[in-house]
Amino acid sequence: MLKNLFAAMPVDAAHEAFDDLLDVPGLRIERIVSHGQKSPSDFWYEQDEDEWVIVLQGSAALQVTGRNDLVMLAPGDHYWIPAGLRHRVHSTAQDGPTIWLAVHRS
Amino acid sequence: MLKNLFAAMPVDAAHEAFDDLLDVPGLRIERIVSHGQKSPSDFWYEQDEDEWVIVLQGSAALQVTGRNDLVMLAPGDHYWIPAGLRHRVHSTAQDGPTIWLAVHRS
Repeated sequence: MLKNLFAAMPVDAAHEAFDDLLDVPGLRIERIVSHGQKSPSDFWYEQDEDEWVIVLQGSAALQVTGRNDLVMLAPGDHYWIPAGLRHRVHSTAQDGPTIWLAVHRS
Repeated sequence: MLKNLFAAMPVDAAHEAFDDLLDVPGLRIERIVSHGQKSPSDFWYEQDEDEWVIVLQGSAALQVTGRNDLVMLAPGDHYWIPAGLRHRVHSTAQDGPTIWLAVHRS
C-alpha cells in the first residue's frame, strides 16, 4: 500500500503501474502511472464498479461510448465513469509520466 | 460543481473553501483549500461517514484520538478517517494555500 502519492514512482516506463493507496470494503483508491500507454485498439473497459478518475500530472484522452469527442484530461481534470460505461484510454502524454488517481466504488 | 481541481482557486484567504468535484449517492469528493486555518480549540470532528483525505499542495497536521503524535501531511500524503474517529485539524501551512482532496463515503 503506497504511503504517498508521489513516492516510489515507477522507473520502468514500458508498463503502466498500478498501486493502491487505500483498499477497504467497498472503496479502493489507486494511483496509476502511465508513460504514453493507451488501451489496445478495439479494447474497451466495461466495469462492474463506479470509478472516478482525476489526472494530477501529464495528460490523457478518453474515448467514451456515446460521445463523438474525446474527453481530454489535463492536470486537475476529473471524470466520472459509472459502472457499465464503456470507455478506453485513447492516449496518454508521451513526454513524461501521467499520474492518475482512481476511486473505485463497489 | 468544480470542473478542475486547480480551477477557481479561492482568493479570500480568510476562510477555508469547500467545493464538490463529485456528488453521487454514497460518494462525495470535495476540494478543500485552507490558508492557515485550523479547527477551533477543543473542537473535534466526529463524522457518520468514512473519509479519506490527501494533501496535494501545502501541508497540514491532524490530531487524532488515540494517537500521541500528530499526523503530518505533506503533498501526496493521505490518511484514512473511518466514521466515528475523532479528529481535528491542528494546523495548515501559513505560507500559501493547502489543497486537500477529501473522499466521503456514506
